[in-house]
Amino acid sequence: MSRIAYVNGRYVPHRSAAVHIDDRGYQFSDGVYEVIAVHNGGLVDEQGHMVRLERSLNELEIAWPIYPSALGGIIRQVVRRNHVRDGIVYLQITRGVAPRNHAFPDHSDSALVITARRGTPFNADQARRGVEVITIPEIRWKRRDIKTISLLGNCLGKEQAVRAGAYEAWFVGDDGLVTEGTSSNAWIVDSAGVLRTRHANTDILNGITRISVLQIARDLGLKFIEEPFSVAEAKAAREAFVTSTTSFVKPVVKIDGEVIADGKPGQLAARLLAEYGHHMNRQTADAK
Amino acid sequence: MSRIAYVNGRYVPHRSAAVHIDDRGYQFSDGVYEVIAVHNGGLVDEQGHMVRLERSLNELEIAWPIYPSALGGIIRQVVRRNHVRDGIVYLQITRGVAPRNHAFPDHSDSALVITARRGTPFNADQARRGVEVITIPEIRWKRRDIKTISLLGNCLGKEQAVRAGAYEAWFVGDDGLVTEGTSSNAWIVDSAGVLRTRHANTDILNGITRISVLQIARDLGLKFIEEPFSVAEAKAAREAFVTSTTSFVKPVVKIDGEVIADGKPGQLAARLLAEYGHHMNRQTADAK
Repeated sequence: MSRIAYVNGRYVPHRSAAVHIDDRGYQFSDGVYEVIAVHNGGLVDEQGHMVRLERSLNELEIAWPIYPSALGGIIRQVVRRNHVRDGIVYLQITRGVAPRNHAFPDHSDSALVITARRGTPFNADQARRGVEVITIPEIRWKRRDIKTISLLGNCLGKEQAVRAGAYEAWFVGDDGLVTEGTSSNAWIVDSAGVLRTRHANTDILNGITRISVLQIARDLGLKFIEEPFSVAEAKAAREAFVTSTTSFVKPVVKIDGEVIADGKPGQLAARLLAEYGHHMNRQTADAK
Repeated sequence: MSRIAYVNGRYVPHRSAAVHIDDRGYQFSDGVYEVIAVHNGGLVDEQGHMVRLERSLNELEIAWPIYPSALGGIIRQVVRRNHVRDGIVYLQITRGVAPRNHAFPDHSDSALVITARRGTPFNADQARRGVEVITIPEIRWKRRDIKTISLLGNCLGKEQAVRAGAYEAWFVGDDGLVTEGTSSNAWIVDSAGVLRTRHANTDILNGITRISVLQIARDLGLKFIEEPFSVAEAKAAREAFVTSTTSFVKPVVKIDGEVIADGKPGQLAARLLAEYGHHMNRQTADAK
């Protein structure tokens, strides 16, 4: 079965899905995106992703390519046409096609691309054994709160992680504090037993899974604090983990080759992962 | 006459020139580019652009999409097919098409797009009257020495300039020093009469026009120094100007609304512009 992509109003075979060479996404990375998990045929945290998408568009003054209310229906159509029961939806909006010029064009129609792919992102082996992260200098721009496709710094960081045999790289600012991973948020259970993740300002992307896990922590009555931590604090932590749409809650057992606590996934991370699973199930129980 | 673009080995009508939605240039801004001026049908500073292109590719470990020695011939073909005598060539190389994943793909063919457009970038009115710049906080990533398509910060800065009625915006670091413009290098003739532009490290793109103008200054025996300057020094300067492939040497007469010197283009800028014109003429005199 061949995949189908939605590109600017048309459902087309994925292999021939194309955009114009003068699309500002291609020449300037002038666009935004979202990745949404599909679970049991339903969309996980759809509302959160839509709110963040709208914020990203507003921050860059990119117009909606279609009526916002129509987007959910198209996303579902792409999910259905690709027979995705568990997997992800990727959607990207750019400022569209215009003669090349750094400043915003007077007129351009925003471009919209939506794809879906099958395969649950959940990796039972990684959940059981935990993963490794490395730390690298923060070199990215200062508006990491906008979910833009300007991801070259993230790509270079992830490539460093892969080459080091790690799952993820955590960016560390000049102040020695961890900002976030290249495609995930960073968390610890600090040496005092308090769940901690950096507060959301322009330094990090406010992950949708981050928001959901914070709500779960709140609902469970856990002690948590939104405050940055240093690499040293992370290495001395009781637990560490990352969250993202495709990582869910993934335990970290080594940082820069140093073993965290007893080297096994932490109990709180396991509990949050289980609760996050329930959270997904609750939302998508009614989907086809 | 319709324009022709070169896209991955084929010469195609510009209006239908397209790349795949999974091109990493579109999803990650994982690519590099060059803009080369065409003057009298010839390429200006071709060698310098090729050296920089190779450096950008090396820094990102992107493979050449074709034999490097073949690139000049294709560029000339695009110039000829578009009947460009004076104008610009734009060329972009990305890491190519691969399933979306931040880390580099194991296998992908680098993508190459080349376009050309007519119209001399030289603006006699701007050369005579000078232009205005504004200063804005430096928010971009820390590898500005690589000429990547990850240009969203530059676009946002240029848009700010346009809205302020200015020609360009100069980025200013936390240290109060000017880095560069959104698409040009920044220069002053300081209050002591010394030509000054920032030294080329990872903080700025080493402009090809910047290099040529430095060589011209050297040939003329002018006193110059490669050292950063503050906004205050720029406002107190005898002259200010910007250089780029499409700006050539463009005099700046106002910074943040404050008049520089007597508010007229400086004599040294005018001299460097004239010499830069000779430099272009010498190189392209033999072209068709």
